[in-house]
Formats: sequence, C-alpha cells, structure tokens
Amino acid sequence: MKTPDLRADVALRINGQRLWNSLMDLARIGATPKGGVARLALTDLDRQGRDSVIAWARAAAMTVTIDQIGNIFMRRAGRNDHLPPVMTGSHIDTQPTGGKFDGNYGVLAGLEVVRTLNDHGIATEAPLEVAVWTNEEGSRFVPVMMGSGVFCNAFTLEHAYRACDTQGASVRGELERIGYLGVEKPGRHPVGCYFEAHIEQGPVLEEANTVIGVVKGVLGLRWYDCTVTGTEAHAGPTPMAMRRDALQVAIRIMHEVVALGNRYPPHGRGTVGYVNVFPNSRNVIPGQVKFSMDLRNNTVELHDRMDAEIRAFIDGVRKESGLAIEVAEVAHYPPCPFEPGCVDVVERAAKKLGYSHMDSVSGAGHDAIYLARVAPAAMIFIPCKDGISHNEIEDAQPSHIEAGANVLLHCMLEQAGVAR
Amino acid sequence: MKTPDLRADVALRINGQRLWNSLMDLARIGATPKGGVARLALTDLDRQGRDSVIAWARAAAMTVTIDQIGNIFMRRAGRNDHLPPVMTGSHIDTQPTGGKFDGNYGVLAGLEVVRTLNDHGIATEAPLEVAVWTNEEGSRFVPVMMGSGVFCNAFTLEHAYRACDTQGASVRGELERIGYLGVEKPGRHPVGCYFEAHIEQGPVLEEANTVIGVVKGVLGLRWYDCTVTGTEAHAGPTPMAMRRDALQVAIRIMHEVVALGNRYPPHGRGTVGYVNVFPNSRNVIPGQVKFSMDLRNNTVELHDRMDAEIRAFIDGVRKESGLAIEVAEVAHYPPCPFEPGCVDVVERAAKKLGYSHMDSVSGAGHDAIYLARVAPAAMIFIPCKDGISHNEIEDAQPSHIEAGANVLLHCMLEQAGVAR
Repeated sequence: MKTPDLRADVALRINGQRLWNSLMDLARIGATPKGGVARLALTDLDRQGRDSVIAWARAAAMTVTIDQIGNIFMRRAGRNDHLPPVMTGSHIDTQPTGGKFDGNYGVLAGLEVVRTLNDHGIATEAPLEVAVWTNEEGSRFVPVMMGSGVFCNAFTLEHAYRACDTQGASVRGELERIGYLGVEKPGRHPVGCYFEAHIEQGPVLEEANTVIGVVKGVLGLRWYDCTVTGTEAHAGPTPMAMRRDALQVAIRIMHEVVALGNRYPPHGRGTVGYVNVFPNSRNVIPGQVKFSMDLRNNTVELHDRMDAEIRAFIDGVRKESGLAIEVAEVAHYPPCPFEPGCVDVVERAAKKLGYSHMDSVSGAGHDAIYLARVAPAAMIFIPCKDGISHNEIEDAQPSHIEAGANVLLHCMLEQAGVAR
Repeated sequence: MKTPDLRADVALRINGQRLWNSLMDLARIGATPKGGVARLALTDLDRQGRDSVIAWARAAAMTVTIDQIGNIFMRRAGRNDHLPPVMTGSHIDTQPTGGKFDGNYGVLAGLEVVRTLNDHGIATEAPLEVAVWTNEEGSRFVPVMMGSGVFCNAFTLEHAYRACDTQGASVRGELERIGYLGVEKPGRHPVGCYFEAHIEQGPVLEEANTVIGVVKGVLGLRWYDCTVTGTEAHAGPTPMAMRRDALQVAIRIMHEVVALGNRYPPHGRGTVGYVNVFPNSRNVIPGQVKFSMDLRNNTVELHDRMDAEIRAFIDGVRKESGLAIEVAEVAHYPPCPFEPGCVDVVERAAKKLGYSHMDSVSGAGHDAIYLARVAPAAMIFIPCKDGISHNEIEDAQPSHIEAGANVLLHCMLEQAGVAR
C-alpha cells in the first residue's frame, strides 16, 4: 500500500441523487414486474446494460478497453499515467430473479466517483479504473465470477470459453454475438489496488444499525453432496426394528451440519439447503436421501476443522447405522482475508466521513476474492433491506448508497493521490 | 360365529399347482417387462382380468352377480341356500408397478377352494362366495378400497362415482365403458363371515420363518401434513444466530415421529416418507418445509396417545423456535381388530393342518377392514419375499401360496359346514 495521501478534501462528496438515478436507469434494462431485474450474462439485455454503462463512461471522458473474456475497463487517466491504476468495479449481470443493486451498485458507484472528480476538476496522480466483470452470478454459465476468475488466472480463458448454457450457447459465441469479445489478453492489465462497494446481502449491518461494513475478508466455502442409502419399505407392515430408514439417518447429519456452524461463532456457518427424498411417498419408508451440506468459516484452520469434524461425525453415523453414506466435496473456496492495509484505508475513510462502521465478513462470493490474488483488495459493504438479495425485492436506502460511494471515493482518492 | 363343524376332512387339500397356474395366467394380463403387473382399476386390462376370473368361476359352476360399484360376487350354492354366504375375496386391480400376488392371491385362492370342493364332490350347508372388490389400490381413483367401502357403507355410491382419474374419466363412466356397471345395490348382499388371504407385504413372517400369519387386526392409521415456515435467506451472509431455518425445525419433528414409533413396541409405527424443501437450493437457508407424518398402532387408546404426543411435541417446538408450524390430519382410519371367533377359526385351521403360524397384524389397508364392519372377519397372511410389495419384484413361494389357500379352505369349510 502507498503512504496515505491526506491532502484529499474531507468535504468532498459524491452526488447521491445522480448515482441513484443511474442505478434506476440501469435497472430498467431487464426490469421485472415485481421491481427486480433479470439481465443474465451475455444476453441481449446484458449487451444493452454494457452499452449504457460504456456510454456514461465515455460521457465522463473515460477510455474503454475490453478483454477476451468481455471484462470492461473504463479508465480515467492519472497525471502519472504509467502508475498502476487504482481500480474499483463489480458486475452488471443479475440472477434470473435478481435485484437492482447487487453488482450494479459497485460499478455505478465507481462511475460516480469519476463524475464527482470531474465536477470538481480534481486530477489524481495514479489513473483510476472502473471494471465491469463478466458473468459474476454464474446463473447462465458456470463457473461463477468468470471474468474476474480468468483475469486473475483462477482458471483458463479456454475453460471459460467452453462453458455452455442450457440451450447449448457457448460463452465465446455469446461474447462474439453481443459484440463484447475484446482483444486484450485477460490479466495483461496492472492493478495497483482494488476496492469493491457492494450491498451486504445479509442482515448484520441493518440489525446493528450501522452504515458501513469494513470487510476484512470472505468466508471460505465447502460444498458437499451427501447420499444416504437405506431400504425402501412400506410404512405400515414394517416394524420399527426392521427398518433401514435413510431419512432418519440423514437428519442426524443435517442436524450436525447446523450444530457445527453454531459451535464456531461468530463466522462459522452450516447449512443444509437441498434435500431430495426417494421415493418421497407418504407411506413408504425412504430408501435414499440426497442432501447438500455447506460449511463456511473465516480462517483456513477453522474451516479445515469443520471439514474434519463433519467427516468424523458421518463416519460414526455410518458405523452405527450400517447404512451406506457417501460424501463428495463438490466445491471448495478457501477463506480470503483482504489485505490489512487496504482494509485500513476503508476503515479510515468511513471514520473520516463520520459514518457508523463495523468490521464485516462477506459470506458470499465476489469478484474481489479473485482480485485479492493479484493486488491488495478490500470491500465496502452497505446494508440492504432485511438482508435480502438475489431476489426481486432486494432494496437499499439512498442514504446508504450515497455513504458507501463516498467511502469508495475517499479510498480511491487516498490511494491514487490528488495531483496538485 | 357358528359352532365349529369338525367333520370337515382334515386330509382335504387344494391343488397348489392349479392355483399357481391361475395366478400366472392372470398375471399375463398387464404383465410388465420386469415381471410385475400394471392393471389399474377400470381399465381395459382390468376388464380382461375380470372377464377371465368370471369365466373360470362359471367353469366351476358358480353364478355371478355384479353390483353398482362393479364388485363381483361369484357364488357356489349351499344345501341351505338361504343361509348368509361364507365369503372370501380380495381385488385384482394393481399398482402401476404392482406385483402378481397382491389381491390376486385372495381372489384366486377363493376360486381354488371352490374348485377343490367340486373335485371332491363336497357340498356345504351355507353357500360360499368369492368377491372381487373394485379399485382396492386407489392408484387411479381415490378413495382406496372403493368397492368394499361402498359395499360396507363407509362412503356413498355417489361419492365413489364422482371420483375421476387424472385424465378426467369418472368411475361411473369407466364402469359403464368396461361393462361392469351392475344393477345390484351395493350392500344388499348378506355376509355370514369373511376371510381374506393375502401376502403379508411386510418382513415379519419371512424373518420368523413362519408360514401362516393369523391376523388379529389392522393397525389404525393417521396421516398428517406438516408445514414449517421460517425465513429464506442466503447461507453465506446470514450468521447462525439470525436464522429462521425451517428445515432444522422440521427435522426435530421428523426425528420425533420415528422416536414415537419406537416408544410404542411392538405395533407402533412412525414414518416420514415425504419431504418438500423450499426453495431447495444448496446455498439458501430453507424458508419452508412440508412433510408427511404417518402414525399407526393397534388399539384406539395407543393410537390416540401417539396423536396427543406428537401434537404436544409440535406445540413445544413451535413455542421454542418461534416458527409457524401447521399440522393437518388428512386421513384417519381407527385400528380394526378382527372378530376373535373368526381369528380363532384361522388359528385352528393352521394348527390342524400343521403349518407354523404366529399372530400377525396388518400394517396396510385391506378390503377386510371394511367387511369387518358388516360381518365377522379375519385375514390369513403368508410370507412374501423380503417383505416387498407394491413392486414388480413382489414374490411369494408356491408352498406358501398353497398353505394359505389350504387354511382358507378349512376356515370356509368349518364355517359353512359340510353337507352330509
């Protein structure tokens, strides 16, 4: 991290109304009747969204480059333009029943930072960039966080290109079709540091009545598929002692997954979200149950301990019940602590601007996780209504939208340095 | 019950090979590639099955009447033909992936009893009847045990007529179409006593290596639908303490349903067979869970206690969790003890013939439950392979098939009285 440039004007603020208007303008592209947004990655609506954002960036005198995975980099030159840019960004693709703020907020808050600097004729030493990462949501194409993942070399461009949607359309084909197959090689782009503003997508800030979450890191995640196989039998004629009831064995494990989350406060999480019972008939003892397990925590050590404990528990249940139990880990993202210096920049900005703030962790994935692999990174959270996201009723208060963008402004300004 | 007529010839036996052949002949109508039978009620295949059985009955010099719900009564006159008939029977409709023995065995064992008496020129004092009850399985039309239910006035003919299958075809229309809409008013038919031979559809006899189950009654059954409503939320950003996880609350109740069955040996049964989780996504905390509860026991008192206990337990969970929990009883059949005199007839016959036998209960529903409302009734169980039924692999040993029919023969003979 650079030495703080404390000359940035403490009184400088973004234009909250303008930012709100841009959010509402962008939300019209793919607007749903229930007030949400359905703008899936690399669809015609995504193209319209990208076109609008780029038009706004050009109107703010920014230059634009597109890379081979369709990531958009909108640049405001620095006085010392060979310095690596201070970058911000997020995504504008949504879930099929998504909201107006998830992702969109991070991109448009970055644009608003540039507009504000333009308004006040403030130049920065280092250049500023606002990135729009391709297919963060992963609703249409897997893997999720695709653009930032390729940019940060988490997986190859070829791997991403091969992904197809359920209709058989490929990422490469769709990039070409919507005119966003750029020429720049992903990753061939220096990043000085990276900030991402985002709604929290959880209830903690709202519950604590706090405006800014200083995000110290992202929880590690492990996903497992678990299958318990017993013997299907009729509920009436089969005495209790002669049953091999797959559901009853499965619920012992389902209970332990949550108990495990409870044993690791404050950041441990244990969730069973998916359950499939076979044959799922009211008078048949279940012969097989498949269910998901989701375990998260904020350090590798704690996360690994949770993994070991659930596996040991399942071994015990397998022995005791005599039923077949299979466990397959289907996804694993290690915990991602953000760079402490970068986190300090966020905290300092929130403090300087007088916003209530608290340490946060992100339970969900964000492009910032991959960016943290190539540059110092941190995130700025603001509350969202009832903690609800990935939902058409997703909502956030204008005053919080404004506050988060002001924090982003001062973070970027401090890192880029005001050119005087 | 009548005073036992002990003059019946102890050496008299049915023709096991002929009975087996008839079972295999009937199983060809609607035979499935996996060795089972798909002959749903009131289909063309059901008509073919009925036509065959009636042809065999006529060949055995029986007379046939059909009532308005399509029940078939195949009668062998008694010397004292105004006496109420000693009746046996079962059904020949099957589940969509049913087996060769469920129901069919009870009908064809009855036919074999008559054939055997014909072979030996034995007349009975009272007439004998073999009934084929319409739509016992309830796969195509609800309610189940429809023909015997109407016959015994459990519900009205009009109620049964209104039932439609998923294609909109009605019971009355289909009865007419296949030519089995009779003229006799259901129930206008005296029944002296009723015996029904059936495969056990459970594992107890096989496990105990016993040939004959002397069925003392049918377990009472209560079906409930339970809905737990919490709050859907993202698995990552929502701390454990802020969750209202519907699945975790539901599994406490699911566990108790089975624990309750275990607390009431030997006849208590508790089963959760159906579970539906909403939205059923691996990274979303379930907002709602619907599941079924099935509680059974052999006396009204024990069955009512189980009902009271599960309701009290759910009240406690509701209070403790603060989640909304709805419970709806969707079906209730009280326990049905068979008439002790009739049960004794079965036991005596098994003993007299030298078959290993034990007391049984039926966990599943049978036409005999309704018949027990209008006449002394009892059932004869034989083992089935691995206790499996309602399945194409349903199987039974020829020696057990023969033994059960011999017990039925001697029960009917004792009750009808040999005319000398």
